[in-house]
Amino acid sequence: MQYHLNGFKTGDPAISQPSHPDESAARSSSVPEEVDVLIVGCGPAGLTLAAQLAAFPAITTCIIDQKSGPLELGQADGIACRTMEMFGAFGFVERVLKEAYWVNETTFWKPDGTKDNGVSRHGRVQDVEDGLSEFPHVILNQARVHDFYLDVMLKSANRLEPHYARQLIDLKIDPTSGDAAPSHPVTASLKRCDPDHEGEAETVKARYVVGCDGARSAVRKSLGLALQGDSANQAWGVMDVLAVTDFPDIRLKSFIQSADEGSIVLIPREGGYLVRLYIELDKLSENERVLNRNIGVDQLIAAAQRIMHPYTLDVKDVAWWSVYEIGQRLCDRFDDVPQDQAGTRLPHVFIAGDACHTHSPKAGQGMNVSMQDSFNLGWKLAHVLEGRCPPQLLHSYSAERQAIARELIDFDRDWARMLSAPVKSTADSKGDGVDPQEVKAYFVRHGHYTAGTATRYTASLITGAPTHQKLAQGLVIGKRFHSAPVIRLADAKAMQLGHTVKADGRWRVFAFCNDQDPAADSSSLHALCDYLALSPDSPVRKYTPAGCDIDSVIDVRAVLQQDHQLLDLEAMPAFLVPAKGRYGLRDYEKIFCPELKDGNDIFEMRGIDRQQGCMIVVRPDQYVAHILPLGAYRELSAFFDGVLKQP
Amino acid sequence: MQYHLNGFKTGDPAISQPSHPDESAARSSSVPEEVDVLIVGCGPAGLTLAAQLAAFPAITTCIIDQKSGPLELGQADGIACRTMEMFGAFGFVERVLKEAYWVNETTFWKPDGTKDNGVSRHGRVQDVEDGLSEFPHVILNQARVHDFYLDVMLKSANRLEPHYARQLIDLKIDPTSGDAAPSHPVTASLKRCDPDHEGEAETVKARYVVGCDGARSAVRKSLGLALQGDSANQAWGVMDVLAVTDFPDIRLKSFIQSADEGSIVLIPREGGYLVRLYIELDKLSENERVLNRNIGVDQLIAAAQRIMHPYTLDVKDVAWWSVYEIGQRLCDRFDDVPQDQAGTRLPHVFIAGDACHTHSPKAGQGMNVSMQDSFNLGWKLAHVLEGRCPPQLLHSYSAERQAIARELIDFDRDWARMLSAPVKSTADSKGDGVDPQEVKAYFVRHGHYTAGTATRYTASLITGAPTHQKLAQGLVIGKRFHSAPVIRLADAKAMQLGHTVKADGRWRVFAFCNDQDPAADSSSLHALCDYLALSPDSPVRKYTPAGCDIDSVIDVRAVLQQDHQLLDLEAMPAFLVPAKGRYGLRDYEKIFCPELKDGNDIFEMRGIDRQQGCMIVVRPDQYVAHILPLGAYRELSAFFDGVLKQP
Repeated sequence: MQYHLNGFKTGDPAISQPSHPDESAARSSSVPEEVDVLIVGCGPAGLTLAAQLAAFPAITTCIIDQKSGPLELGQADGIACRTMEMFGAFGFVERVLKEAYWVNETTFWKPDGTKDNGVSRHGRVQDVEDGLSEFPHVILNQARVHDFYLDVMLKSANRLEPHYARQLIDLKIDPTSGDAAPSHPVTASLKRCDPDHEGEAETVKARYVVGCDGARSAVRKSLGLALQGDSANQAWGVMDVLAVTDFPDIRLKSFIQSADEGSIVLIPREGGYLVRLYIELDKLSENERVLNRNIGVDQLIAAAQRIMHPYTLDVKDVAWWSVYEIGQRLCDRFDDVPQDQAGTRLPHVFIAGDACHTHSPKAGQGMNVSMQDSFNLGWKLAHVLEGRCPPQLLHSYSAERQAIARELIDFDRDWARMLSAPVKSTADSKGDGVDPQEVKAYFVRHGHYTAGTATRYTASLITGAPTHQKLAQGLVIGKRFHSAPVIRLADAKAMQLGHTVKADGRWRVFAFCNDQDPAADSSSLHALCDYLALSPDSPVRKYTPAGCDIDSVIDVRAVLQQDHQLLDLEAMPAFLVPAKGRYGLRDYEKIFCPELKDGNDIFEMRGIDRQQGCMIVVRPDQYVAHILPLGAYRELSAFFDGVLKQP
Repeated sequence: MQYHLNGFKTGDPAISQPSHPDESAARSSSVPEEVDVLIVGCGPAGLTLAAQLAAFPAITTCIIDQKSGPLELGQADGIACRTMEMFGAFGFVERVLKEAYWVNETTFWKPDGTKDNGVSRHGRVQDVEDGLSEFPHVILNQARVHDFYLDVMLKSANRLEPHYARQLIDLKIDPTSGDAAPSHPVTASLKRCDPDHEGEAETVKARYVVGCDGARSAVRKSLGLALQGDSANQAWGVMDVLAVTDFPDIRLKSFIQSADEGSIVLIPREGGYLVRLYIELDKLSENERVLNRNIGVDQLIAAAQRIMHPYTLDVKDVAWWSVYEIGQRLCDRFDDVPQDQAGTRLPHVFIAGDACHTHSPKAGQGMNVSMQDSFNLGWKLAHVLEGRCPPQLLHSYSAERQAIARELIDFDRDWARMLSAPVKSTADSKGDGVDPQEVKAYFVRHGHYTAGTATRYTASLITGAPTHQKLAQGLVIGKRFHSAPVIRLADAKAMQLGHTVKADGRWRVFAFCNDQDPAADSSSLHALCDYLALSPDSPVRKYTPAGCDIDSVIDVRAVLQQDHQLLDLEAMPAFLVPAKGRYGLRDYEKIFCPELKDGNDIFEMRGIDRQQGCMIVVRPDQYVAHILPLGAYRELSAFFDGVLKQP
């Protein structure tokens, strides 16, 4: 954490200076009449977006929800490694690490072939492969994730808090374009549903509206869009329970496939006692809905007991339960601009999360993909609203995230089918059932996907061509910037390089040095820094507004090859120890060295070309935008010229 | 974290259920008339004690301070590794890790011998040696440490909050002993100093009073005790500044010794910009006081600039500064019972922290030793108040901590002398100055001491004889339990064994298994568990009150030698998967295995005898109380018989 830049302040450094002198002004009970962004829905997607926009004091945001207050008991609970990395960028990952259950290993159970047909363990695998992320896969009640986001929002300069008990009634978009276009073209009509104001109407005019309002999204409906797909005729139950059992893997994620009684996906939960069971129920008939079956929690418990036989399950307390049917449904675009009008019209309304894609919960993807949706959108909205780039950038949200959602739907269909299929006995290789070994193999094969690290954006204005990909073979253009351990030169701190990428809307350029002495004035590092600091073509110079710190739009950092104890900070380019803030204090956190003592050489781990070095451009949402040679000044400038605009 | 044992609850798991239905009852504006413990002073010692006592809902505590509210700007800032371990036990170490500056390396500067006599670096060492603790040495404003303790207190069942603006006027101890002895023998007279109640008198009757009220302690004076020692005639200045400098080690802890201008101890601070400088000023004359010199911050800055020559120091903002003289002073006992009456009288009033020992701040020990004082006292008071042990245990506080304070005073005298001595030029080996190389060597030699891990309590009722020390050569009886990595068997989580020792007043017994198969019914582990679970002599059975969980007084855990994937949880003794709480839910967090994948075998790291195994008894304050053979049931029982009493 860096703080005290503009003078020493007492108290919690996570609390920003308020942007209104009277803090309560920001907490008025009515919604504002006009805002930059209106977010509909306080789920994971909506709160990720709100927390991201809260990083920009000049942007006004309003977030509403139909519910009367914060979520107390969530349904989603799986948090993928990639999501943990994002939580790190928002500054609360250590709280999640502390409270959550860590998914360390996964076990597989199948019919043991004996006469009484019990289940027995046939496999045990590490849940996440070594080195995939510096964070574990964890399980935590969605409501706690909400709490952490709400805390980030409340500590922001605008002290952003949701307006609860608001129902979206209607959304109108003024189609006027050109010079006569209104500044706030979207008008949202709301109805209050809190007891003292029941039925009162409110109107919010917004530059942008984002629907994070779930599978029955009112925003999506107002755009005339629909979720397309099938609702498969397979019913499942889910329950969070406190139970006494002799099942030995009750604290390990387990796939349990019985011979004739169906399957269970068992997910241990936070706190050491709670466990979630997904339980396969009977097939539904054509057009039958699971809700019409009147299934009660007792039936879920009885089914679980049959599947787990010969082990016992004595349920003591049910924290939550539900029944649902599996379906995979997707919206064909995530904004208000039809494909054929993308060249002539700019988007003003977006949808994210369950509003655009719904699927089965058992792969633990829903909450994670939803949050990545709005993390993708957040910095783009902020860039446009702050005037850092043209509004055309906003087209890339639907383009990038719809493709990811389609992959999710395809993955989920296969996985759900596999878990609902009858078990093929290993002796009998015929029949259309699933061999339990296949389930295990499929799970392992898709480990990168379920960890959220397989997401790869295709080439666009903000994702470069792979011309120089070979300079950093372990950092893939379009995929998230994969962190690795480093030592910070100025204070010898061992840390993760990726943790310098905060959710602050800034671009990063990591200059990985070549094999020259970086202290030499003639080195490529000095030359690059001279260019960035002095050239009129330098993107750092061109796109940083006057009066702002030199790293406030593009944050340049260097990674050297040498042991940190052999390097001389005084000989490094002044550009990498920049003067910042009202006092011109030096920022000493820009230069890193490999962590050689424990053998974690970032050049080795990420396949950086030692002879040539390279530049890695990282987007504000932590994805690798481009890889360029150290001397490719013109290409670097061209890349940013394609994205940013001069202030 | 373990929670949801007695049913699922939404919200922050760190917040306990309130013990009063009306929470505000616990926050009345008047002090209570009668309490178990009155703590005078909201410094680090007082807050550590209050946070410890807050873990026991049945104990009533009142903590007061003369100041009108929480500290905003503290003077102490160094947090030793040992203190971080304690913060882990209190549950907020991850917040400190996040906000603090990490002291990774320390550098040494001396006159460079050139004509203009500037300083140059002559050494650079790792600040804490590898493996000394799983936590780093860090620097953080004392006020933030207070905040974290206040948060722990507020989230406790009793929602403990300080009563500010109270001055202690007088303390009376009723000397009546025997059957007629009053339950609350100490009467404290207070005077309010908050504007609306200025001068109002209040009286609190307490079973125990603890003076954590600093060097001018009113509690100490009321006992007729005094700090003994000298106030050396060496003046120092200290300032926290935001500055621009070309001194390359401005982000590394540095000892700077100039030829003729004195010395600086430079401590980088949290947030990346702030730095603390301790600056040697001139010698004082006999009986001269530094406060009479009218030294201003400009003189401190000028002195720092002269010492750091040829480097520049341009101070932009001074967050805090002070001048002081070095002295080492100590109180000869820390409670109200004179040595010769220890056999006949029980202590009721204690002093801790600066109230019993004052010294120079430059070794960064003050706050750390003060907190360890009251961490030592807290569980003892709780034990006595909860009826778990006889009140004679309380004698051990002064006995144990006065010895530690004496060591501190001796260390500090040497260290302060060394840093204030003139620099001996290396060419000239004569003279009574200090060779800079000696400073460096002394610093390295005392690394364990300054990290707080050298503390070793001598044999007593609560610290056993070293008869079986050889069974665990890396875990020393009387020293803190040195954590090491393990894998938890039930959920395969990689974690630190020492982090199971929370500040909850419980004793721990770690059974390190021998080389037998722990799954075999005939194994020593099964035999030990049978004894502990079933024998009428079992200390676990004898000292656990009826209706309480079996691990609520003595928490027994096992560490096996085998790889966790090769072990069968079902074959482990049921005693190690105990039924707890209202539902009889199983606690799966008692059995551990070595972390073999990364080569961190706890048996190797802590020198455990693989053939014999052993039992390690750990005190509630994390110190190793005893080491015994696995089969030494009688010795184990005898140890606890000497400490605890039957409920």
